[in-house]
Amino acid sequence: MLKRFSEEEALTLLQEGSFGHLGCLTDKGPYVVPLNYIFFEGSIYIHSLQGAKIAALRKHPTVCFQVDKLVSEYQWSSVIAYGCYEEITNPDERYWFMRRILVRFPHLTPVESIAAEGEQSKVVIFRIHIDSVSAVGED
Amino acid sequence: MLKRFSEEEALTLLQEGSFGHLGCLTDKGPYVVPLNYIFFEGSIYIHSLQGAKIAALRKHPTVCFQVDKLVSEYQWSSVIAYGCYEEITNPDERYWFMRRILVRFPHLTPVESIAAEGEQSKVVIFRIHIDSVSAVGED
Repeated sequence: MLKRFSEEEALTLLQEGSFGHLGCLTDKGPYVVPLNYIFFEGSIYIHSLQGAKIAALRKHPTVCFQVDKLVSEYQWSSVIAYGCYEEITNPDERYWFMRRILVRFPHLTPVESIAAEGEQSKVVIFRIHIDSVSAVGED
Repeated sequence: MLKRFSEEEALTLLQEGSFGHLGCLTDKGPYVVPLNYIFFEGSIYIHSLQGAKIAALRKHPTVCFQVDKLVSEYQWSSVIAYGCYEEITNPDERYWFMRRILVRFPHLTPVESIAAEGEQSKVVIFRIHIDSVSAVGED
């Protein structure tokens, strides 16, 4: 039967994952985008090129981030975290993140590689500081 | 490099998929939920038990639905469709959908099985009539 995980279990699932779905609000309505991420000290770290998504996040910083763990049809979980979009502008923090994401994702997609290695001024690094998190699933 | 697919290709990707992420708006902000679906004649069909998600969809019917196709790290696509939540109340349409979803997903999760086989009055069947669709990826 469906199980509701504890907050600690939900945070562990976030820690174990590396790919999730960011839910945000644009002028067209709700928007969902798949993204790689790093979870560190209660926040979800993501990088992106400038664009419509970042413009929307600046305008509507309340977001959610959902992560699936699909082991089988009978063993799965879904975590959802709520929080606020915060851009990282401190050069030391940006450098720390860039090193870390290139180690964690050596095979980034081309867009991500551009974001990770290309013109740094065009790269937005942000975190979602988690206000609440929950998870359901079967195991 | 990143590729933008045609609308026809995006619709084919939706047709081929069966699992996606619904983005909607709740009183807490954006919300993302993973769901099985059936694509038929320009609409995405989904079923669910009554609850907070359905209450939110009734209040804010503008939604998006995102589907990943992950073949490898270098071969993937992401489709996003925008549309409007419409509940299906006609008994013949509800019966058609229930038969179809049980054939397509013989191993539904327990919640979905309850929704598919349990008390019909508690089951909400809805479609997202697609207004626009796009897809990006690498192949």
